[in-house]
Amino acid sequence: MKFASFAVDGPTGPSRRLGVVDDGQLVDVTAGYAAALDHDGEADPITIARAHAPSDMTAFLERGDRAMAAAETARSYVTTHDVSTGPDGEQLRYDEDEVRLLSPVPDPNAIRDFMSVEEHVRNALGEDIPDVWFDIPIYYKADADCVGHPGQDIEWPAYTDELDYELELCAVIGKRGRDIPAAEADAYIAGYTIYNDLSARDIQFAEMEAQLGPAKGKDFVGSNVFGPYMVTPDEIDIENVSMQATVNDEVWSEGSIGAWQHSFADMIEHLTQNLYVHPGDLIGSGTVGRGCGLELGRYLEPGDEIALTVDGIGTLRNRVVKP
Amino acid sequence: MKFASFAVDGPTGPSRRLGVVDDGQLVDVTAGYAAALDHDGEADPITIARAHAPSDMTAFLERGDRAMAAAETARSYVTTHDVSTGPDGEQLRYDEDEVRLLSPVPDPNAIRDFMSVEEHVRNALGEDIPDVWFDIPIYYKADADCVGHPGQDIEWPAYTDELDYELELCAVIGKRGRDIPAAEADAYIAGYTIYNDLSARDIQFAEMEAQLGPAKGKDFVGSNVFGPYMVTPDEIDIENVSMQATVNDEVWSEGSIGAWQHSFADMIEHLTQNLYVHPGDLIGSGTVGRGCGLELGRYLEPGDEIALTVDGIGTLRNRVVKP
Repeated sequence: MKFASFAVDGPTGPSRRLGVVDDGQLVDVTAGYAAALDHDGEADPITIARAHAPSDMTAFLERGDRAMAAAETARSYVTTHDVSTGPDGEQLRYDEDEVRLLSPVPDPNAIRDFMSVEEHVRNALGEDIPDVWFDIPIYYKADADCVGHPGQDIEWPAYTDELDYELELCAVIGKRGRDIPAAEADAYIAGYTIYNDLSARDIQFAEMEAQLGPAKGKDFVGSNVFGPYMVTPDEIDIENVSMQATVNDEVWSEGSIGAWQHSFADMIEHLTQNLYVHPGDLIGSGTVGRGCGLELGRYLEPGDEIALTVDGIGTLRNRVVKP
Repeated sequence: MKFASFAVDGPTGPSRRLGVVDDGQLVDVTAGYAAALDHDGEADPITIARAHAPSDMTAFLERGDRAMAAAETARSYVTTHDVSTGPDGEQLRYDEDEVRLLSPVPDPNAIRDFMSVEEHVRNALGEDIPDVWFDIPIYYKADADCVGHPGQDIEWPAYTDELDYELELCAVIGKRGRDIPAAEADAYIAGYTIYNDLSARDIQFAEMEAQLGPAKGKDFVGSNVFGPYMVTPDEIDIENVSMQATVNDEVWSEGSIGAWQHSFADMIEHLTQNLYVHPGDLIGSGTVGRGCGLELGRYLEPGDEIALTVDGIGTLRNRVVKP
């Protein structure tokens, strides 16, 4: 399945919903499940649907396999019955241009971004890669308050002249756990999405001299963009999928994760030593080789549109704008 | 005022409350305010008290000056009237040994930890401090999922042999904002607490070779301990207050923030460039000079009790234990 979080504007203000993509439309998971339950004679379908298949992605993931099954029931019911509204008159399907897509996890609890592709590390940090990079998965914590959404205009930070994109994959955690062995880690991944890790290179490299890693180089409103969809693991071959970045329709980056040094399973094993991950936590793969302007010797300009495409997921588009 | 978050165990499970410290006891803010409102003839004192002075510190801070005034009203009412229970029979005062103290902000949205004291930087990173450290406040993001509470036994991470404490002050953000000038930043600080930034030095320095800063060296269950109280700014002279760390009652560290390179106001100005801070966000000062074992050439042993004392705040005690 392919999921999207989205906002529906209405007279009482925006409402956040969760959808399953079907034939170019979004089937509302909570409303669709309520409709299916109602059809089966459930006494209070709306309350039960909200409990098992809530409209917030993090809450949905917290409900585990039962929520996934409810989403499948919702899609199946809505697409095989001649219905347009649920038991309370709520809309069951949306065209994408009726709604605003959000990051699949609109308010993530945590974002850990790893650096796992050797070609990128070599291009970004220099040929002399420290041994520790080969030994353990290296990560920093991205700012979970700085999430950007598909289609959102990202404000150019006043303090940078070297704004850059990064073409990454992102794994979405689906289950709480700690001390997770790599061999069991796949069971903790609910799906994958695209991650544009926007970076202000001038301040990033300046502050990294002080050894605490990137900070304002990565932390600004909308700097961590995810989307447009979360695809479940059964539908995507994450290591071999084609990835592409264009800027104003010109191809800047092309590649795949390919032979990464550390897989998502390795990252999860390393991260969860004496630490809990939670449903909706996001894990960045690191940038693919030649997957950012830094590696190409060129940076973004105000007004540029970046489009990151991953086959099987979709295209994540954002413009960077000076206010 | 001096605030504490705490848990009260009861037959229906633990309940989290917010207290104001008075004469060695904790006055329950929400219950005390409800009692005062009831005394004044408010029609629905419990609902109104929960709205204006909620029991969760983050929600309380979100209510701003009005919540602070309600806390003062609660303390004043409870300490000047002969009352022991509120309008619904709820307890108004607790002895500390009746409850479990929690981190003042039990579930912080974000923790940014700066490095602002030159003596610590010189001792920890070497004499050759990069220029950028003098120019801008340097920080990393601590893991907000890894909060430890006063008195909690902290589990020794299986992957380290060099566990260390860090003696720090912490500012608690009280108001949402971005692009905050240093001259206005004090108005965004709701109070101060003590921060023990537990660190696994062996893996920290290994992973920092790869330039993304500390990760597993700082990220494990209970690694960011705060408490025992949050003191409002009017009650403490944060730059000159005496700070001390003992391990098993032996003094290891003594000092004060003193002549720090970057004040909390500077940190807030730097951090909030193109970025929002929120009520309950935590900002670490960085370690005071000789304020950790790394600077002293010695590390903790399993079973050690660390006690961090800051005059005017209190003493934050934790034991590190092997499971």
